[in-house]
Amino acid sequence: MKSIISSYDLTREEVEEIFQLASKFMKEQKGDSLKGKTVALAFFEPSTRTYLSFNKAVINLGGNVIGFSGAEGTSVAKGENLADTIRMLDNYSDAIIIRHKFDGAAKFASEVTNKPVINAGDGKHEHPTQTLIDLFTVFKHFDKIDGLTYGLLGDLKYARTVNSFLRMLTRFNPKSVYLISPPQLRPRNEFLEELNYPYKIASNVNDVIEDIDVLYVTRIQKERFLDELEYERIKESYVIDLNLVSKMKKDSIILHPLPRVNEIDRRVDKTPHAKYFEQASYGVPVRMALLTKILGE
Amino acid sequence: MKSIISSYDLTREEVEEIFQLASKFMKEQKGDSLKGKTVALAFFEPSTRTYLSFNKAVINLGGNVIGFSGAEGTSVAKGENLADTIRMLDNYSDAIIIRHKFDGAAKFASEVTNKPVINAGDGKHEHPTQTLIDLFTVFKHFDKIDGLTYGLLGDLKYARTVNSFLRMLTRFNPKSVYLISPPQLRPRNEFLEELNYPYKIASNVNDVIEDIDVLYVTRIQKERFLDELEYERIKESYVIDLNLVSKMKKDSIILHPLPRVNEIDRRVDKTPHAKYFEQASYGVPVRMALLTKILGE
Amino acid sequence: MKSIISSYDLTREEVEEIFQLASKFMKEQKGDSLKGKTVALAFFEPSTRTYLSFNKAVINLGGNVIGFSGAEGTSVAKGENLADTIRMLDNYSDAIIIRHKFDGAAKFASEVTNKPVINAGDGKHEHPTQTLIDLFTVFKHFDKIDGLTYGLLGDLKYARTVNSFLRMLTRFNPKSVYLISPPQLRPRNEFLEELNYPYKIASNVNDVIEDIDVLYVTRIQKERFLDELEYERIKESYVIDLNLVSKMKKDSIILHPLPRVNEIDRRVDKTPHAKYFEQASYGVPVRMALLTKILGE
Repeated sequence: MKSIISSYDLTREEVEEIFQLASKFMKEQKGDSLKGKTVALAFFEPSTRTYLSFNKAVINLGGNVIGFSGAEGTSVAKGENLADTIRMLDNYSDAIIIRHKFDGAAKFASEVTNKPVINAGDGKHEHPTQTLIDLFTVFKHFDKIDGLTYGLLGDLKYARTVNSFLRMLTRFNPKSVYLISPPQLRPRNEFLEELNYPYKIASNVNDVIEDIDVLYVTRIQKERFLDELEYERIKESYVIDLNLVSKMKKDSIILHPLPRVNEIDRRVDKTPHAKYFEQASYGVPVRMALLTKILGE
Repeated sequence: MKSIISSYDLTREEVEEIFQLASKFMKEQKGDSLKGKTVALAFFEPSTRTYLSFNKAVINLGGNVIGFSGAEGTSVAKGENLADTIRMLDNYSDAIIIRHKFDGAAKFASEVTNKPVINAGDGKHEHPTQTLIDLFTVFKHFDKIDGLTYGLLGDLKYARTVNSFLRMLTRFNPKSVYLISPPQLRPRNEFLEELNYPYKIASNVNDVIEDIDVLYVTRIQKERFLDELEYERIKESYVIDLNLVSKMKKDSIILHPLPRVNEIDRRVDKTPHAKYFEQASYGVPVRMALLTKILGE
Repeated sequence: MKSIISSYDLTREEVEEIFQLASKFMKEQKGDSLKGKTVALAFFEPSTRTYLSFNKAVINLGGNVIGFSGAEGTSVAKGENLADTIRMLDNYSDAIIIRHKFDGAAKFASEVTNKPVINAGDGKHEHPTQTLIDLFTVFKHFDKIDGLTYGLLGDLKYARTVNSFLRMLTRFNPKSVYLISPPQLRPRNEFLEELNYPYKIASNVNDVIEDIDVLYVTRIQKERFLDELEYERIKESYVIDLNLVSKMKKDSIILHPLPRVNEIDRRVDKTPHAKYFEQASYGVPVRMALLTKILGE
């Protein structure tokens, strides 16, 4: 029984075991590893996709869910500190899945309770269960994680999904990783120093698209730019359209954590490269596998 | 397995089968037709009554519910398009029950997913499961739908419950239908052309009340009037009070989809004509019957 | 099957039976007294702690929960009157647990439905299930309720938890009760006339702390003061800090219904007197016991 706050909390072996189990759950869709157990979903920051897929995963495993999505109207809104809220949930559950707008909230929670805590996204920090789903999609398509060329596109400085993705890749041996973003949205240098695999900085996806096996797209938020005009100027170069897709390797794939807004032209959905809906469909089996690993015994 | 978007999606035979099954569920209150199944409640427009009665219906049939009521804080609020949201729910459920403020949202949803979609109210379009409950109440009281005189009172232009009611009546043989509303809230002509039974337009319920077996009351919303003074002027003539009820046929009944605001004087609740609370109590058994028809086999 | 609106709805014997049962549920954490039953949680005023602990209690007893927390987006928001909303819930549930911002809402609800109603907090009136948890904590620590000296600190005029606490104490024989508050937050005289045990009015906790076995702390809300300066002036004297705790009897305890904001210095949490987290942990077993008493047979 342990907490999953960061991608670093999982070894390569554990990731591979989770993938084995997830493949099994893809077929069966059910189990009883959470029978008589209750999982608390503490989503201080609202979410549909992540909330519902954890909810469904618990249901499929015979467990019960309690919790909330959105802090308005919770005791938090009344000024309660996070520690007291977590202590409360500790009384009601066997594990706590937390989403919060502050970096480090999940780690903090794990220090307050003895129950396992799963980070479902904390501020600009991490979202490791999303990464498990991302890499499981890669694994299902290529039957491996190693030896591939990855391209991460968009906001590489503030996107927690990107942080968790790049960190979990350190457990594997990617051939190379392209970090494609506007200069002001590049990963921090301290972060880059963590990476134990070859990576290249790029500003224009068109320059490198021919090389890429796995293109991971994230949203670029207008708010990140001091100058809205600059945002307007660059945003086109970060939209995936049929023209860009036409340059991709035959067997390459496009991933996106969803929800997407305009980062991917809807016409791309019908191309064989578009794997983001399949990726979304792995949310439940992968989370069933993780929950079984953590609470199953 | 099919979707129910409009009253037209049900034949007379299917309606009658649903009523048979609903009568059975009224006594038993439980079944196992949804055992191991999960139903998604996607209420983009919030609702208590419809949400909870579907929720209870699924529980009574041994199924699980996931979903949301109110779009604030969902990925929709983040700008996700409806198609992507429905694709997500498709991954988590065996059927999708949708309420949305836009006409046609339910139909659109049914084109995105292969899972059956049930329209729980889409804008000013339809709300067919409410009509099943309405007509089931008529059936329980008169032991028939045919041969009766119906009176629909209130907003006949924008009320989705009225649209579904009038359309489902085309599957039966009503003696006559009075359409009672202020001139500006009469059904559109194209809509009237759909009706295959005799109907009469009226402006004042007092002129026709003696004829009516089933009086169906809906709210008149102030917002529908350009001139608030006009609203104030006419609204009294659309409130059901003891004086009006005193003119009703001995065996006639009053229906209302609820929630009501001031359309029906509370003193009417105690008269034998008031059937709207009984009508509300049929929400669960009728929805259990529909869900069993759609997902049961 | 009866409703619990006020502490007065329980006899001493019933409270003691509930404590017996709660002690049993503390160990087992599960039962089947609600198998096949559905409990409606009608939280018109949002709450996390109370909502989730009732939710978990129902789950542990094999029952189902339907309901809402926060009235926004419910039919109430559309202008439905409380009576109609309760009649709706009556159709969907075997018992109704209600929280509402208006005094008397729970009593009113119990007059509309034949199903048992449990008051989970109505305005400034009462919150009897919280009191069961409070006194259960006392019972677990002292193995008795009688013969102890209680101190209630804070808002004694508007806090529903205080009202329910003082009223349930009338079923027992406390040695004495100190009512410690700013003059403008003292209990109303009519209320004091209900008390059948010795009590003393105090303004400064420091004067009486040495006497107290059970110190019950509630929040003092700034809004209660016409003059904010006066609030600033007095508030320090109503904060529990290590200095005050140092004067407490060796075996005395501090209770708080939670959530707390700044009424108790966090450094107090580590002292043996701090029982409020243990108190919170009794929420589920005590509510399991109450629900079993009401719905179990």
